[in-house]
Amino acid sequence: MEKKQSFHVAVVGATGAVGEQMLQTLESRNFPMEKLTLLSSKRSAGKTIVFKGQELTVQEATPESFEGVDIALFSAGGSVSKALAPEAAKRGAIVVDNTSAFRMDEHTPLVVPEVNEADLQTHNGIIANPNCSTIQMVVALEPIRQQYGLKKVIVSTYQAVSGAGAAAVQELHNQARAMLNGEQPEADILPVGALDKHYPIAFNAIPQIDKFEDNGFTFEEMKMINETKKIMHMPELEVAATCVRLPVVAGHSESVYIEIEQEGVTADELRALLANAEGIVLQDNPAEQEYPMPLYAAGKNDVFVGRIRKDLNNDKGFHLWIVSDNLLKGAAWNSVQIAERLVKLGLV
Amino acid sequence: MEKKQSFHVAVVGATGAVGEQMLQTLESRNFPMEKLTLLSSKRSAGKTIVFKGQELTVQEATPESFEGVDIALFSAGGSVSKALAPEAAKRGAIVVDNTSAFRMDEHTPLVVPEVNEADLQTHNGIIANPNCSTIQMVVALEPIRQQYGLKKVIVSTYQAVSGAGAAAVQELHNQARAMLNGEQPEADILPVGALDKHYPIAFNAIPQIDKFEDNGFTFEEMKMINETKKIMHMPELEVAATCVRLPVVAGHSESVYIEIEQEGVTADELRALLANAEGIVLQDNPAEQEYPMPLYAAGKNDVFVGRIRKDLNNDKGFHLWIVSDNLLKGAAWNSVQIAERLVKLGLV
Repeated sequence: MEKKQSFHVAVVGATGAVGEQMLQTLESRNFPMEKLTLLSSKRSAGKTIVFKGQELTVQEATPESFEGVDIALFSAGGSVSKALAPEAAKRGAIVVDNTSAFRMDEHTPLVVPEVNEADLQTHNGIIANPNCSTIQMVVALEPIRQQYGLKKVIVSTYQAVSGAGAAAVQELHNQARAMLNGEQPEADILPVGALDKHYPIAFNAIPQIDKFEDNGFTFEEMKMINETKKIMHMPELEVAATCVRLPVVAGHSESVYIEIEQEGVTADELRALLANAEGIVLQDNPAEQEYPMPLYAAGKNDVFVGRIRKDLNNDKGFHLWIVSDNLLKGAAWNSVQIAERLVKLGLV
Repeated sequence: MEKKQSFHVAVVGATGAVGEQMLQTLESRNFPMEKLTLLSSKRSAGKTIVFKGQELTVQEATPESFEGVDIALFSAGGSVSKALAPEAAKRGAIVVDNTSAFRMDEHTPLVVPEVNEADLQTHNGIIANPNCSTIQMVVALEPIRQQYGLKKVIVSTYQAVSGAGAAAVQELHNQARAMLNGEQPEADILPVGALDKHYPIAFNAIPQIDKFEDNGFTFEEMKMINETKKIMHMPELEVAATCVRLPVVAGHSESVYIEIEQEGVTADELRALLANAEGIVLQDNPAEQEYPMPLYAAGKNDVFVGRIRKDLNNDKGFHLWIVSDNLLKGAAWNSVQIAERLVKLGLV
């Protein structure tokens, strides 16, 4: 069979914050498409979106929408993915799903191309895109694991509001304006829209992202813990996470402590390793005040790593500061990158 | 000799952000004063400040300013303390110094009253007030150390701009206004005024507080490490810190991982312990979305602790989220509290 050169792509959730970034990324990467279908909920259907100068109308996503689709990028919430991703796969599409619906399903590969591209081979029609805060961390940790082994990870996150959607960004802006004018801020979305209590994020830090599990960790924290183990194929890896929302529009930051297996490794060796690693930009020059920051990582596909220090007590301990655009490498770019790899590997 | 009941207090740096909070705290605590002398640099001398309804003129601080002073609260920068604190002590004043000038001096006690009040007894005229981010952490850790032993601390901070002074807060506000209007923000102060490069803090996170040491840690990080060991009298304690500045006006937050000595301790036991500890307010009810946040800690003297979780891999590991107003317990309140204890202990 002749290898297909151009594809019918569907974007589900085309009108959302991540959907928008997916379309921009498909355009900027010049992804080989013979057709683009934009899908959404009934509510957003009928809207028009310009792609490569052409106006496209968003249609309501139904099982039949996926007839003839080669690749379906889903980012419309877990319930939509649960209902429609299997329908798309049944009709021959390969789904790249950016929700948490299938991430921990044992038959669904959870893929960050720089880390576990090979897992794409085992897909059953659905490939899961990991949680944003997980992706950027494993991109930085995988070269270290390969070279020196990895035993323990303790991460504290500094997460942007865009991860909670465009309405949350608007709310941050409204709150900041109100507070700068000496007015009380209104809060209706963060930390979790569906829960009872909402707190202002402007000029604040909220140590809750997603709901709480019974063990006191949030879903977001457990995602980081469980997804990291799955992507890196290390069920024995010790991972702990504390996830915090900040008044930052785009770009998640992470303060990460790791313990490696090998003795006697220096911070300079770690820097040299990461400077040459795929998908990573090393920004680590204290003398020049050079380190990653979310304001400068926003809009870029790379994972930025800096503040690399050897622990003062543990020869195998290191500290890192990892920053990336949560809507790009954390979502849209990782999804499109998966699609590119599927093409490259002849899996679609 | 009859015990003195009312004191001559001097505040050095009376016009600064911390000085202002010191005066408010002296007033709200109704500190027993027979006289209050306000001192500053030559530049700020001549300004007037209202204290308890009375207008006081700020005078230039000189060695002679401290004649007859019982207690001198210093918060005017390290160079002022180095020059004048010994002069004040020589004239019989007890100095409570909020700069880093004497903190690591072996003859100067470094005091957080809830932790090491007894060290006040050994003073030689100068008592050092620890770094803001250190104070709130040791208040939370000391009851744990006493009850269960403490082996290791890894902290990532989320620090407010007010720690860099009133001008930095103004700059944050100006930057936020500019960015909300779609304009480029101007940056002249953070991360370190005296260094070459400045970055906007509005809608950003800057992983640099103070200058860098040769080991890649910042001065702020090394302060947390060294001061924690000194205050807790634990030179062997393993401490690591990553310090990050946030677009928050007041209130430092800290994500802290600890390892204790005792086995089998539960998160509930830790909660019960901290709920009854001095200076701490436990805010830890995930079901009610109750946890500390800087926006709500601002203006309060307490240290707020929540998000207490047992580590999922280490029986002796726990995670905590610690928040306090960096200008109050982190500076002004801790200084005035030291002064109150000096009075209570008959040391002044």
